[in-house]
Amino acid sequence: MTRDRLYLFDTTLRDGQQTPGIDFSVEDKIAIAEMLDAFGLDYVEGGYPGANPTDTTFFARRRTRKARFVAFGMTKRAGVSAANDPGLAALLQSASDAICLVAKSWDYHVAVALGCSNEENLDNIRASVAAVVASGREAMTDCEHFFDGYKANAPYALACARAAYDAGARWVVLCDTNGGTQPSEIREIVAAVIAAGIPGDRLGIHAHNDTGQAVANSLAAVEAGVRQIQGTLNGIGERCGNANLVTLIPTLMLKAPYAERFTLGIDRERLQGLTALSHAFDERLNRSPDHQMPYVGASAFATKAGIHASALLKDPRTYEHVPPETVGNLRKVMVSDQGGKANFINALKRRGIAVDKDDPKLDRLIAIVKEREAQGYAYEGADASFSILAQRTLASVPDFFRVEGFRVMVERRYDANGQLRTVSEAVVRVSIDGETMMSVAEGHGPVNALDLALRKDLGPYQTEIADLELVDYKVRILNGGTEAITRVLIESGDSTGARWWTVGVSDNIIDASFQALMDSILYKLLKNRGEAGRAAAE
Amino acid sequence: MTRDRLYLFDTTLRDGQQTPGIDFSVEDKIAIAEMLDAFGLDYVEGGYPGANPTDTTFFARRRTRKARFVAFGMTKRAGVSAANDPGLAALLQSASDAICLVAKSWDYHVAVALGCSNEENLDNIRASVAAVVASGREAMTDCEHFFDGYKANAPYALACARAAYDAGARWVVLCDTNGGTQPSEIREIVAAVIAAGIPGDRLGIHAHNDTGQAVANSLAAVEAGVRQIQGTLNGIGERCGNANLVTLIPTLMLKAPYAERFTLGIDRERLQGLTALSHAFDERLNRSPDHQMPYVGASAFATKAGIHASALLKDPRTYEHVPPETVGNLRKVMVSDQGGKANFINALKRRGIAVDKDDPKLDRLIAIVKEREAQGYAYEGADASFSILAQRTLASVPDFFRVEGFRVMVERRYDANGQLRTVSEAVVRVSIDGETMMSVAEGHGPVNALDLALRKDLGPYQTEIADLELVDYKVRILNGGTEAITRVLIESGDSTGARWWTVGVSDNIIDASFQALMDSILYKLLKNRGEAGRAAAE
Repeated sequence: MTRDRLYLFDTTLRDGQQTPGIDFSVEDKIAIAEMLDAFGLDYVEGGYPGANPTDTTFFARRRTRKARFVAFGMTKRAGVSAANDPGLAALLQSASDAICLVAKSWDYHVAVALGCSNEENLDNIRASVAAVVASGREAMTDCEHFFDGYKANAPYALACARAAYDAGARWVVLCDTNGGTQPSEIREIVAAVIAAGIPGDRLGIHAHNDTGQAVANSLAAVEAGVRQIQGTLNGIGERCGNANLVTLIPTLMLKAPYAERFTLGIDRERLQGLTALSHAFDERLNRSPDHQMPYVGASAFATKAGIHASALLKDPRTYEHVPPETVGNLRKVMVSDQGGKANFINALKRRGIAVDKDDPKLDRLIAIVKEREAQGYAYEGADASFSILAQRTLASVPDFFRVEGFRVMVERRYDANGQLRTVSEAVVRVSIDGETMMSVAEGHGPVNALDLALRKDLGPYQTEIADLELVDYKVRILNGGTEAITRVLIESGDSTGARWWTVGVSDNIIDASFQALMDSILYKLLKNRGEAGRAAAE
Repeated sequence: MTRDRLYLFDTTLRDGQQTPGIDFSVEDKIAIAEMLDAFGLDYVEGGYPGANPTDTTFFARRRTRKARFVAFGMTKRAGVSAANDPGLAALLQSASDAICLVAKSWDYHVAVALGCSNEENLDNIRASVAAVVASGREAMTDCEHFFDGYKANAPYALACARAAYDAGARWVVLCDTNGGTQPSEIREIVAAVIAAGIPGDRLGIHAHNDTGQAVANSLAAVEAGVRQIQGTLNGIGERCGNANLVTLIPTLMLKAPYAERFTLGIDRERLQGLTALSHAFDERLNRSPDHQMPYVGASAFATKAGIHASALLKDPRTYEHVPPETVGNLRKVMVSDQGGKANFINALKRRGIAVDKDDPKLDRLIAIVKEREAQGYAYEGADASFSILAQRTLASVPDFFRVEGFRVMVERRYDANGQLRTVSEAVVRVSIDGETMMSVAEGHGPVNALDLALRKDLGPYQTEIADLELVDYKVRILNGGTEAITRVLIESGDSTGARWWTVGVSDNIIDASFQALMDSILYKLLKNRGEAGRAAAE
């Protein structure tokens, strides 16, 4: 049996932008488009060129190599020709491979939102799709409110879909815009569309999660015949979100009946990067990954010591619906057992640190890590801090320098011109080989001042850290209120191109930042001596 | 047509207890059982009496009034009689109305995990169910791994289900223990079980979310004939969680085809308490509610000002699959840089601020909001700051007090005992009616110190802000490095139960926090005078 090709259409940068609390910068969009392209998505929809400065800048250049780069916009208005519609013109000027036009397909919305006649709306769809086709780009149409529209007026909804198809749209995408349609309805209505003459390999599905079934609705549509699926990374999107591609991709690739029937543009090796992709995306949004997310969550293959744990240890596969390594995730049995220890030894080995499994120092390290993670440290995201902790516990780390104390001051006051101004200053007292030196620096905010003061004079080590650079700084409040515990993650780099992450945790953000800054400098000094763990610097 | 009764079985306190990071105390269990009982759940499963001290204490008394109180445990072991099995004895001694016995129904697990013969396992099921029935309690059986077991050995899986049914189990619950079964498989296998002689009104479904389809699988089982659904509050549970009852309940009560075909033990009035139930549960777990959760999330009925917002304003119902008030949630149309003038007017109207569309001050406000959002302010998440800005621009805001300056100091030094300690201190200079006062406070970190100093002495306004409380504090770094722009969002509340969000943005985290703190105090003072926007305080 030949397997049908399914096409994945990512709308993270367009519908995902509708998520409350999410606003992508141009740099965010460029980075996310690269991730999606590298992972093997077929289409990457980038936004609405012409509608806002971010999207217009983003569409000034093609931002994908392999994936088709898609611009989104509306069909032309009634009363103007396609050639004279400014919205359509902006789409055609964008550096896109394909253009997705949203078209009303519920007669009620045509009247209320567009205020034109049903026939005018059909004309607008035809003329707009034809203009895209004439421009040499791939045309597709999102039939907005298709399922609700079909329930209200089936012939008109079908006429809208047909208008797009007849005008040459490569894909006619059926959208459950309000997200309330149930899988059985999706199945039935998709079958009716195919019966009305649009083949399944020209149809797409765009589902929302308002009843928690965006994934099930997408799969129901695929079973009914559609061959394009729209969704987003981690299911972000308006209201309750869009269909989560991070859940759909492994289900389609690994599970019956899909794995036997379909192929995607992603291979099994890429699939092992799924967990990393999902986490990298959350990292960019500066939010904690959902531990319970299917396939990629930290808990997705975790079992608490309970009725399942002992059976799991006998044969893990019988308690797992897919092997965690297929999606780049890890099995976790949260009991202190051989399995846990073996994982630790392995994690150390990957950092170039050898340790015997009966070494009592290993038990001490495991205990310290567990205790610190309970306090809020996240060593998973701070490899350099983990390497330092492991080396310090299992062997030793040289005392290059000691910070005897620091003082950071932020003052808001009127300056000489009568303007309110805020200044930040830090003083650091460092001792090296019995000699004490003080450094002072001003900065943009207290953490920046502290960073500058710390690295201003490290005596004999100063030249060594000259190329150390802070690349990123992330703060997460681990519980509510201004008394909350703060976790700081710092990404550093140097002229060799290496990057490393360090972590600090405290109820004081300055203290937490200080810990992470210190680890970063220490890591750099160890690295210069060839003593830093390997993996951390990768 | 008479409507079939569906029974809801809550396993928050049993399977939910398997969630990594969740451990219920006896007090938690008592409080949660009360919530579930009051909401109208049919069965509340409390845990494993006899297996641990918490559950044994919890089962010392009946903890529900109306709902049936269910104890969970294993069928008896092979080789001992039901009367001599200590596990079964503990269940029978508990103050439960019903007992749910978990039984293996996959022959492979019988061999690997139980180490007994298939026939012995069937005997154990029969004898254990009979013992529960003989005790006068309602008996039910969770057929563990039923779907995977059926796929491996259908006759044996069916034999296990039949053994429970024939021995008198009121409910035979088909469990998708590994969570990987797809809705079409569920539908097919449930039909086979009914064809094998167990009627649908004696069958239950227990689904897990490992492919994001626990809700869809539960509904597929209901469509195929089962009449009991097991799930948890907010979908907590082992790995990716159990079926989310908070999503299933409104779908069953409000959506076609379920609403016309079924009744639940919950009425429409109770349903309006669903959002409160979901949030109260998260409150008890001390975690932030999921904003995107279907029906009850803060974003579930939120629309960013974009292509949908203007149509939404014309007729909200056409962009909502159910009315938000049916589940006790609220509609939200958010301000953002994508917004047009009509959206702005509406956003203001909902805050009780009337403005004419031709008022030049409105254009000024829109320009200010756009400019500030470009700087990093996020007014969609900071309703109170938006209200203040709007009032200040369109009308005026009283000068209650003025902060002339502040100084925040963080010092890390050796204390009298030779220990390194970090202390934070803030000094604030405030002028009120020409009088200047200074306040100083120590805190956990610089922001906490500043907050305490700011609210220490506001002269005539001090008593008014006595019940002001900071509830949450969020920091987002808008670009990399320690020189980055920082956005701070603060959630505040007071004794009336009102909550409001304020925002601050600066390259200095202390400054950003200061702005958000100032807005919060100002909002509280306006609110006390009935001058704060309405929507922001909701």
